[in-house]
Amino acid sequence: MTSVDLNADMGESFGPWTMGDDAALLQILTSANIACGGHAGDPDVMAKTMRMAHDNGVGIGAHPGFMDLAGFGRNRLSVPRATLQNQIRYQVAASTGMARSVGAEVRHLKLHGALANMASEDEGLARDLYEAALSVAPDLIVMVLAATAQERAVKSLGCKWAGEIFADRAYNDDATLVDRSKPGAVIHDAEAAAMRMVEMVKAGAIITESGKHIPTQIDTICLHGDTAEAVQIATAVRKGLQDGGITLAKFNGNA
Amino acid sequence: MTSVDLNADMGESFGPWTMGDDAALLQILTSANIACGGHAGDPDVMAKTMRMAHDNGVGIGAHPGFMDLAGFGRNRLSVPRATLQNQIRYQVAASTGMARSVGAEVRHLKLHGALANMASEDEGLARDLYEAALSVAPDLIVMVLAATAQERAVKSLGCKWAGEIFADRAYNDDATLVDRSKPGAVIHDAEAAAMRMVEMVKAGAIITESGKHIPTQIDTICLHGDTAEAVQIATAVRKGLQDGGITLAKFNGNA
Amino acid sequence: MTSVDLNADMGESFGPWTMGDDAALLQILTSANIACGGHAGDPDVMAKTMRMAHDNGVGIGAHPGFMDLAGFGRNRLSVPRATLQNQIRYQVAASTGMARSVGAEVRHLKLHGALANMASEDEGLARDLYEAALSVAPDLIVMVLAATAQERAVKSLGCKWAGEIFADRAYNDDATLVDRSKPGAVIHDAEAAAMRMVEMVKAGAIITESGKHIPTQIDTICLHGDTAEAVQIATAVRKGLQDGGITLAKFNGNA
Amino acid sequence: MTSVDLNADMGESFGPWTMGDDAALLQILTSANIACGGHAGDPDVMAKTMRMAHDNGVGIGAHPGFMDLAGFGRNRLSVPRATLQNQIRYQVAASTGMARSVGAEVRHLKLHGALANMASEDEGLARDLYEAALSVAPDLIVMVLAATAQERAVKSLGCKWAGEIFADRAYNDDATLVDRSKPGAVIHDAEAAAMRMVEMVKAGAIITESGKHIPTQIDTICLHGDTAEAVQIATAVRKGLQDGGITLAKFNGNA
Repeated sequence: MTSVDLNADMGESFGPWTMGDDAALLQILTSANIACGGHAGDPDVMAKTMRMAHDNGVGIGAHPGFMDLAGFGRNRLSVPRATLQNQIRYQVAASTGMARSVGAEVRHLKLHGALANMASEDEGLARDLYEAALSVAPDLIVMVLAATAQERAVKSLGCKWAGEIFADRAYNDDATLVDRSKPGAVIHDAEAAAMRMVEMVKAGAIITESGKHIPTQIDTICLHGDTAEAVQIATAVRKGLQDGGITLAKFNGNA
Repeated sequence: MTSVDLNADMGESFGPWTMGDDAALLQILTSANIACGGHAGDPDVMAKTMRMAHDNGVGIGAHPGFMDLAGFGRNRLSVPRATLQNQIRYQVAASTGMARSVGAEVRHLKLHGALANMASEDEGLARDLYEAALSVAPDLIVMVLAATAQERAVKSLGCKWAGEIFADRAYNDDATLVDRSKPGAVIHDAEAAAMRMVEMVKAGAIITESGKHIPTQIDTICLHGDTAEAVQIATAVRKGLQDGGITLAKFNGNA
Repeated sequence: MTSVDLNADMGESFGPWTMGDDAALLQILTSANIACGGHAGDPDVMAKTMRMAHDNGVGIGAHPGFMDLAGFGRNRLSVPRATLQNQIRYQVAASTGMARSVGAEVRHLKLHGALANMASEDEGLARDLYEAALSVAPDLIVMVLAATAQERAVKSLGCKWAGEIFADRAYNDDATLVDRSKPGAVIHDAEAAAMRMVEMVKAGAIITESGKHIPTQIDTICLHGDTAEAVQIATAVRKGLQDGGITLAKFNGNA
Repeated sequence: MTSVDLNADMGESFGPWTMGDDAALLQILTSANIACGGHAGDPDVMAKTMRMAHDNGVGIGAHPGFMDLAGFGRNRLSVPRATLQNQIRYQVAASTGMARSVGAEVRHLKLHGALANMASEDEGLARDLYEAALSVAPDLIVMVLAATAQERAVKSLGCKWAGEIFADRAYNDDATLVDRSKPGAVIHDAEAAAMRMVEMVKAGAIITESGKHIPTQIDTICLHGDTAEAVQIATAVRKGLQDGGITLAKFNGNA
């Protein structure tokens, strides 16, 4: 029986500022990528979000990024590699311990924002960052953007991993995402998003804009959490998958 | 055979700014209180300081404080209690995981700055903060200012703890510290500091300015790390204790 | 002809996080208190908010607070007085120059959050903070909570000032605000808020819960900007005042 | 009579952490580049440094950089251009107002760290940043790295400017600095540094490692403030210039 995981970023509020409807999304997801205080999140937000995820049986992931709150981790920074590794260690460590304090545990790792983009282009960087995270929590399942340098990095490291595709982003024929500036790059129609996810999961392949199939390991589907239509799309994708006979469950990681 | 531990705060550099001579102090101490990124320290500083402490066989402690870098944790903040607990959890978590990543472990907890002062006056606050720390790392030995509300809190919690006195501060007859504004409040003479520590450790009591003995559990002696004479006083105290037949060793914690 | 000013806090977004509906409020207000990057706001938010205020003919005020983003300036901090003065200077300076860069100017000053509360209880503190602000921008009109230590401070300083009352908060007989925990402390009914403002402005007095009149200089009415009903209450108060024959206009400051 | 200015970065302490010996340097310099709270500096440090500079008759400059304290402005960040301009406005504004509050004024602007490096390679960036600064303080003299894109930017803008060379860095034949990793890139010998400055100032040219003369406008010499030998080199350069018959005075800016 085919099974897939649904994930989204959350815990991205900070102090008095809220972002996303985490409570609603946690009814839909099977895994949650929770900010660690680097690009977003604070100790209260982390504790609350982890507790909610745990109560809903949703898998908890550490979601570290550049330590740049004002830029929300979206700017590329030329931080020295060793410093970047320590920043990842710090965030994963904070995440792991906070989870323990609410009786939960961190199951997976997903990189955030500009750092994730950089790691999807640079296998050496991805590898260094994953190693840093695993030095803190050796059992983490590393979530990677399918068919990118991130996937090559986990395979070369030999750690547990899960391959991820996007519900609402169109793909180019080389498995990269269609640039946001182009028409059709972002799928806003919930039903359309659901339908193509069923297709891709059943095919075990990324299906590009041109219709090309790129066989790949699909363990989890990324839903966006911070848009107006986030909950609506998430609901439609979940229903579409279930109607298509696909089981929704946390990934267990590929060896 | 009488034994005592020597501790000091360290890892208080931040980014390009250095503070203290940690490498020198680590030759002298048996326990190090390492900042967690709240009032000082950053991921690089934490990793480096923990690695040095571990290599020197010095016990590693988490040293959380108010999350106020600009104020170095010295200002009192009216942060809501539950938020404060989460901030302690976050810092202890970061500390615990960073230690693991360098092959070490966090043995003890010591509160920093204004937060420590507040906890030494308020048993309920101390208890709440210690509980928060223990929810992340249940085996921590909690270092308390001997004969203050901090000590009452650990006894009421029933956790492992170690009692601490200051090498370079004079005591009032109620076991509080003589106010820094008064003459003689801070002991600058290394030999004098050493001599009184030998006396207090042998007596198992705080000896106040007036000569009064307040029997108390003395497990560790606090040396200051950030003054010009820090290394000199630390060296003298260590030598004085050894010459006085007292063994220097990490505390194991009272039950 | 009786005239009064309407003010609200704004520019309290930060990085990716938004707060309040500034664009809508700026259609209603005559003065805007704009955060300076201390408790909220960032350079982009400041520039954008100031430009909008200027385009709408709304008076721009600097709204400094404790430099504590995570706590939104709501926690009391024991920052040394001279440091606090420099922090006010810094924020007012940033505000003044940012306004100049968009072709506008800062007309008034209003303290934010915990710092405002502390200054309303402590004339010396209020005076020190106002002096600091005026050392940067000598022509500022200082907005004070009417009938508090803030008002005594401006009178003792001899600077230009404007007295402020709250549209949606009930008053005790000593002119302090009814504690938020008590029923009726916060007025949620837009019409009721409007009606009592007309009454107070016409009476030239704060009217307390018990009906007592405390004669006071009322130059401006504070509307809240960050609640769900903010725009609705602001609209009602504006309409109520206009229907009551009161002109809405920026204050000019009492000497 | 030939005249030149001596400048160095300062006011780079933060909170409890000190950097450089500003008091000593201010006896030697004619212009000081003072950090604005972006990459270093805080309101206390700014106020104190500006007061000292003013008391010593040293010209005050705003020294903005990337808003990245942990990285000291040394990391390149992909901040959107308009945001970067607002961040420059904010820092220059803070600087200008803080100076006013101590009875001084900001005369010049110098970019810091990675941002300065980027602006020396990219005329459009330099121009955008200078325009942002001038929108806050139109009379600023913009200090530029001689013979780089920074100089082309001020000439194209038509603002007042001053050309700067380094006392302790060797130059390539294209007027760029010899990479720090190469031998001889940094001049540690105080007398050697002094001698070549006299030579360059008299020649009105950068003299490269190979001996090539690149005629350029030399208005100011940059001394480093944060090294162990900083004060010693600064003293030697000052003495060398004076002995060579060169007057030391603040620049007035080229039109």
